Amino acid sequence: MSIVAVGTVALDTIETPFGRVDGILGGSATYISMAARYFADDVHLVAVVGNDFPVEHIDSLRNCGICTEGLDVDDSGATFAWEGRYHYDLNDRETIATHLNVLTDFAPAVPSGAQKCRVACLGNLDPAIQQQALEQMVAPDVVICDTMNYWIEQTPDSLRETLKLIDCLIINDAEARQLADEPNLIRAAHAIRSMGPEVLVIKKGEHGALLFTDGSIFSAPAFPLEDIYDPTGAGDTFMGGFAGYLSHCRDYSSESLKKAVIYGSAMASFVVEKFGPDRLFALSKEEIDRRVDSFRILAEIPEMSPLRVG
Amino acid sequence: MSIVAVGTVALDTIETPFGRVDGILGGSATYISMAARYFADDVHLVAVVGNDFPVEHIDSLRNCGICTEGLDVDDSGATFAWEGRYHYDLNDRETIATHLNVLTDFAPAVPSGAQKCRVACLGNLDPAIQQQALEQMVAPDVVICDTMNYWIEQTPDSLRETLKLIDCLIINDAEARQLADEPNLIRAAHAIRSMGPEVLVIKKGEHGALLFTDGSIFSAPAFPLEDIYDPTGAGDTFMGGFAGYLSHCRDYSSESLKKAVIYGSAMASFVVEKFGPDRLFALSKEEIDRRVDSFRILAEIPEMSPLRVG
Repeated sequence: MSIVAVGTVALDTIETPFGRVDGILGGSATYISMAARYFADDVHLVAVVGNDFPVEHIDSLRNCGICTEGLDVDDSGATFAWEGRYHYDLNDRETIATHLNVLTDFAPAVPSGAQKCRVACLGNLDPAIQQQALEQMVAPDVVICDTMNYWIEQTPDSLRETLKLIDCLIINDAEARQLADEPNLIRAAHAIRSMGPEVLVIKKGEHGALLFTDGSIFSAPAFPLEDIYDPTGAGDTFMGGFAGYLSHCRDYSSESLKKAVIYGSAMASFVVEKFGPDRLFALSKEEIDRRVDSFRILAEIPEMSPLRVG
Repeated sequence: MSIVAVGTVALDTIETPFGRVDGILGGSATYISMAARYFADDVHLVAVVGNDFPVEHIDSLRNCGICTEGLDVDDSGATFAWEGRYHYDLNDRETIATHLNVLTDFAPAVPSGAQKCRVACLGNLDPAIQQQALEQMVAPDVVICDTMNYWIEQTPDSLRETLKLIDCLIINDAEARQLADEPNLIRAAHAIRSMGPEVLVIKKGEHGALLFTDGSIFSAPAFPLEDIYDPTGAGDTFMGGFAGYLSHCRDYSSESLKKAVIYGSAMASFVVEKFGPDRLFALSKEEIDRRVDSFRILAEIPEMSPLRVG
């Protein structure tokens, strides 16, 4: 039931057609841990913030039951800050500014209480830093990892090293095609699994997600949302729900992985309903159960009689 | 068990990274009827060809059991010809040339034997021509229609008239967003249903299809294909499988419509495996059944225990 999320804690400035928020709590480790805590009792966050980071945000994370012992406060500079804008179609985002600040020298120190977590989540970071974090873990059951186009392009060799060390990679469809250098997503998935991760999840936003395990493919639908206020953090929230569920059931069979994809999808469908991580503060387990049920209704194929005897 | 397909019969020249074919049998009415005939006993085709149309192609259609009485041979000109090229990623196609030829003056004449068909399929054509064809039908149970960006842009008023007369529209996601002038696909679907069609199917290529009926949404996966040789005709083949299944079961409930989407998706997944309609000549019902089974395996969400009692 224990999980550690290594990643970023950020101050995000987000503009969408529905409004603008300045310097709100963000970052991959934030979203992962805030989603995972609905499933796991023991959630640890490993990240760095700067001298400008509001103490209320740390309180918020702690009030969610997240252990922030691994949150390093680096007084030498400001917190990693991201500024982005989404246009009306919300599918592509425009990065206005990325200030790495204290993230530049981030060397993750996994506290002893977090080193024995059964599930390790490596949020999107320099692959070398992901490896540093992983070296401090004591034989986790599952290592789940994210990456992005920047590392695929800039640090391909280091990324390949990380891929050899992990059990599950979660990336989006464009990243999968780029990583495998292959436009066909199914072929790309096979190529990526041959690089190391036994399990691959490809997130496709409004088109759902694909899970690739040994010899099987699972296609999960996306929850049909009419109002998406802010897509920020959806991918990290997916990882949090996915990893959280796995740490909850402690079973990593193909059936459990499918369920984990549905929980990840459900959590992601909540987070985009409000700005930033707002929606992750006070969800109920009943709400999550109801949403998970609606995924089943959405995707259920009726029993079909064979044509050949028709 | 009777179905009529009004649309085009064309000579297609297609280039993909896997090869090139010149002047092969194509057109919406061809693909629709060739897919539908696996489900319906009585399939009628209504279209026009020119003085260059090879008689072997007419024989091919007839050998498939398709009634070609409604295939007008117009001696005044050449057959509608389309030339297109697909690049390595196969997602976007480039139209090299479109020669309307005899299609310019096409006035569909639905033979008396086809006027009483229970299911009418209106392939992608000028909406005014779709209406002309429909006026000749005697109270079909279901009218299923396709359209494209050209008619959405060039003949919006006429298209709106057609939409009022049909039961089911089948279009792709880009067309749905354009027709509704709305980037959110779920909102776009609601808007389109308010224009007339009670049932809407949005095809999303490699991402599957969405079925919108009164108060319910069904998300169908796409069959995971590693080798797509030629996407030409996939959308029309989907319509043929969809409409064919409905005419087979003569039940238009939401359950039947879901099954029809799976049959449409299965047929489309076959047709792209070879050039042109090649794959539709000799499929077996067993092959179709097996592919339909694999859609269920692909999308099946395991039983999940509620979190709230966990």
